[in-house]
Amino acid sequence: MIQLTLGIDIGGTNTVFGLLDKEGNLKYNSSLPTNSEKPINELLKKIQLDIQNYVNATSETIEIVGIGVGAPNSNYYSGMLENPPNLKWGSINLKQVIGDMWRLPSAITNDANAAALGEMYYGAAKKMKNFVEITLGTGLGSGIIVDGKLVYGNDGFAGEMGHVTVKRGGRKCGCGRNGCLETYASATGIRNTVFELLANTRNQSPLRNITFSELTAKKIYEAAVKGDFIALEAFRFTAKMLGEAFSNATAYLSPQAFILFGGLSSAGALLVDEVKRSMEENLLAIYKNKVQVILSQLPQGKAAILGAGALIWNELT
Amino acid sequence: MIQLTLGIDIGGTNTVFGLLDKEGNLKYNSSLPTNSEKPINELLKKIQLDIQNYVNATSETIEIVGIGVGAPNSNYYSGMLENPPNLKWGSINLKQVIGDMWRLPSAITNDANAAALGEMYYGAAKKMKNFVEITLGTGLGSGIIVDGKLVYGNDGFAGEMGHVTVKRGGRKCGCGRNGCLETYASATGIRNTVFELLANTRNQSPLRNITFSELTAKKIYEAAVKGDFIALEAFRFTAKMLGEAFSNATAYLSPQAFILFGGLSSAGALLVDEVKRSMEENLLAIYKNKVQVILSQLPQGKAAILGAGALIWNELT
Repeated sequence: MIQLTLGIDIGGTNTVFGLLDKEGNLKYNSSLPTNSEKPINELLKKIQLDIQNYVNATSETIEIVGIGVGAPNSNYYSGMLENPPNLKWGSINLKQVIGDMWRLPSAITNDANAAALGEMYYGAAKKMKNFVEITLGTGLGSGIIVDGKLVYGNDGFAGEMGHVTVKRGGRKCGCGRNGCLETYASATGIRNTVFELLANTRNQSPLRNITFSELTAKKIYEAAVKGDFIALEAFRFTAKMLGEAFSNATAYLSPQAFILFGGLSSAGALLVDEVKRSMEENLLAIYKNKVQVILSQLPQGKAAILGAGALIWNELT
Repeated sequence: MIQLTLGIDIGGTNTVFGLLDKEGNLKYNSSLPTNSEKPINELLKKIQLDIQNYVNATSETIEIVGIGVGAPNSNYYSGMLENPPNLKWGSINLKQVIGDMWRLPSAITNDANAAALGEMYYGAAKKMKNFVEITLGTGLGSGIIVDGKLVYGNDGFAGEMGHVTVKRGGRKCGCGRNGCLETYASATGIRNTVFELLANTRNQSPLRNITFSELTAKKIYEAAVKGDFIALEAFRFTAKMLGEAFSNATAYLSPQAFILFGGLSSAGALLVDEVKRSMEENLLAIYKNKVQVILSQLPQGKAAILGAGALIWNELT
């Protein structure tokens, strides 16, 4: 008999899930449309059925020992999924719903926290006890590990580094405030930076032929790889803002590394080297040449399941 | 027989020390000039002798079970006192020196970290597991408690919130960089603010008759209490900068409270209410009305010994 946990990552469009052992071997994984206009129980029953079919079909005897869930705006302490903007369920006690359905130990946290645990169990942070996972997607998420444990804070909502104010009176953020880090360092942020550069410079650029609505981080990356000045400058500015933020974060946490994960981080060296340079330039002397900036080593596409699975393995051991 | 720890706080001018039980009852305390132009062993031998005289004289049978030391630029992991600017010993392994002399368990950390532990054991944070202790002296120090434990980070130097950059290109800091929080929020910072205000306003003020060298935070406080506009405005600005910094710190740590300790915090309500207001105004919505800003409840003058004693009680239990 093998013991496995079920990791579920609930996204706005799709929900991915899978079974993994403690070493992070993914024995099975699948995905379903999230369909949040329908009750969450419908989604969870489909997952339960899908998993049961696999368990019945496989030759191995499987014991599922717990369920870990990564979902936006979700609170580890209360178990609540608190009205995430891209899901239509309002506020629900997801931990309880899952407990009622599976009768197994469960844990829930946001996707950046789950990614941080996944990184520590199965990725680039295997030997680290103090690091910060940075997820660069539409926004910027963070999961903070101190002394081998996730920092949840007093209310379960610690680690919102995307909403650290980096520029007073700066860019308008989706949170209603101004100058948050994620308005500069995220897929949304780099698009805004490109449009500022298009407005304020006279350089030729293929990006001048793309509308705001159609411009993606991927298109900016492709232009940068071809040497486009505007695109390269946008990456440089994004990296500068991230590096300055990492310098400040170090004064709180003195981590071994900042680990970049998610869409924008696929720009790889284009981002990492410049972030590191900007961070070093700004660090207090005692921290210089001590803090790494590296890319996630979680496998693309499976990272979310590994993170959610790690969350519950972390509870059980 | 009663078990006590020895708490020692090494300052630039004086060293205070005392014996306390686990409940924080100070059984004995004393102080000596630090005299750092002489070898540290001379100071430690005097402390040893002083304590031995007390132990011999008292009717109680005392077992000293460990030694905790708070000292500037000192590292919990390495035990090193690393070349603090106001002490002349250079870099020494203080933990080893103390171990060699007393043959007892010992621990060392900086004064802000010791104050945080003291606050958690004996002060305003007795029931808190997530808070930040802020020491407002010549500079600004911080001790961060996450899940009931001090955050040391990867290298033992976490918690330097005084050196978070709050204004790019801002005031010159003693660390060689610009715009650090402590250049605005500290005894030094508020003096600088007063001189900026004297330069940029035309208000009458008794502070116009005090030289830069002679102006102290105490004099600014006394003027503020008498209703002086410049002094009040300087406190308001200091509080605004602190509140903004606490708002950002909350996005990392989501603490239950920020606890103000040290010289400048004796301004009390003059500071606390305005810091709280500025913090709330800047907080991300999910954190609003959750985070306290309060004053330390450690007794003036004995806080440093209690903190150093708590550090070693924390190790032993």
